[in-house]
Amino acid sequence: MKIVVVGSTGTIGAAVVRALARSGQHEIVGVSRHSEPAFDIEDATAVGAFFKAISGIDALVSCAGSAVFKPFAQLSDADFERSLHGKLMGQVRLVRAAFEHLASHGSVTLTSGILAQRPMRGSAAVSMVNAGLEGFVRAAALEAPRGIRVNAVSPPWVTETLEKLGMEVAAGLPADTVANAYVAAVEEEFQGQTLNPVQFV
Amino acid sequence: MKIVVVGSTGTIGAAVVRALARSGQHEIVGVSRHSEPAFDIEDATAVGAFFKAISGIDALVSCAGSAVFKPFAQLSDADFERSLHGKLMGQVRLVRAAFEHLASHGSVTLTSGILAQRPMRGSAAVSMVNAGLEGFVRAAALEAPRGIRVNAVSPPWVTETLEKLGMEVAAGLPADTVANAYVAAVEEEFQGQTLNPVQFV
Repeated sequence: MKIVVVGSTGTIGAAVVRALARSGQHEIVGVSRHSEPAFDIEDATAVGAFFKAISGIDALVSCAGSAVFKPFAQLSDADFERSLHGKLMGQVRLVRAAFEHLASHGSVTLTSGILAQRPMRGSAAVSMVNAGLEGFVRAAALEAPRGIRVNAVSPPWVTETLEKLGMEVAAGLPADTVANAYVAAVEEEFQGQTLNPVQFV
Repeated sequence: MKIVVVGSTGTIGAAVVRALARSGQHEIVGVSRHSEPAFDIEDATAVGAFFKAISGIDALVSCAGSAVFKPFAQLSDADFERSLHGKLMGQVRLVRAAFEHLASHGSVTLTSGILAQRPMRGSAAVSMVNAGLEGFVRAAALEAPRGIRVNAVSPPWVTETLEKLGMEVAAGLPADTVANAYVAAVEEEFQGQTLNPVQFV
């Protein structure tokens, strides 16, 4: 399969590239904001140009998108807008492009996150966009053309991220373990699902 | 209790006003886009002015907000933006205002909808904003100040709406039955929940 991984330089994205490469069966194209040209999911023009320039994509995996984590009382209008466009609408844009450009029976896999279902103080905007993404995936799957599948992976806290933040790592999963859920979304038959990586350990 | 019902002229909003009035215990203030002055949840200035002008609100109930139902391939950027701001961010605005202005131990009750969890063809934008709203409510509840509670009600199809659309009414619940869930959200102890009206028949 020809697989595009968006956000391929991030902690999870890099692990997903490694995991997909393991079988030796796939051609993997990693893109990110650091690519040349830059691939930013918030930039409709850049995303459009990318899909016009590359053809025969079988799977699109998004490990991109950020939302604002901040105490509720400090969340501003701008923080909500940044979250909506950074993580939610950016990934919605990828699905809309994928439905148009992916090969038949291809797949799109997005990234939500555990805060959708297990919120914590500071997560109002993040929980909102993650849950919205999961609702979008459930619905979009019903209208996916040409046998294309669309799913999300909802990563828990990632060990490497917790380490960087100086937090207790026992609560997280290593990125290489989280990546298994993305491989399952690409290689198996899921449709309209949000996959929890603990089920793919 | 002094209760503000936003969207009080809609099918569900009017039923909520009737249901809350039944006990004779509450002072109910209904507002809508048809009020004088108009109360539009998308208008930050109007919402701000309303909360400055009225005090001692114990409960805020929102039966307002609309999102775009349309075949996936026809959903435009503008349709997504309209849905995000019409139903999601408009109600988020009410919660932010409520946390600032409601009486201690008050409550906010928002409206999501069954398409969050049970999508259908055409519901991608609606499912997205409804699910996002439910994620927001779960998280915002953790940071609600002064004992304020925040919940959502997720109405199924409403009989009166199905009738208007010429659809099979057996699939729906009457608005007066749906209203029971809003009364429970206001008068009982729920916090951070999405209430399904079938549990309050």
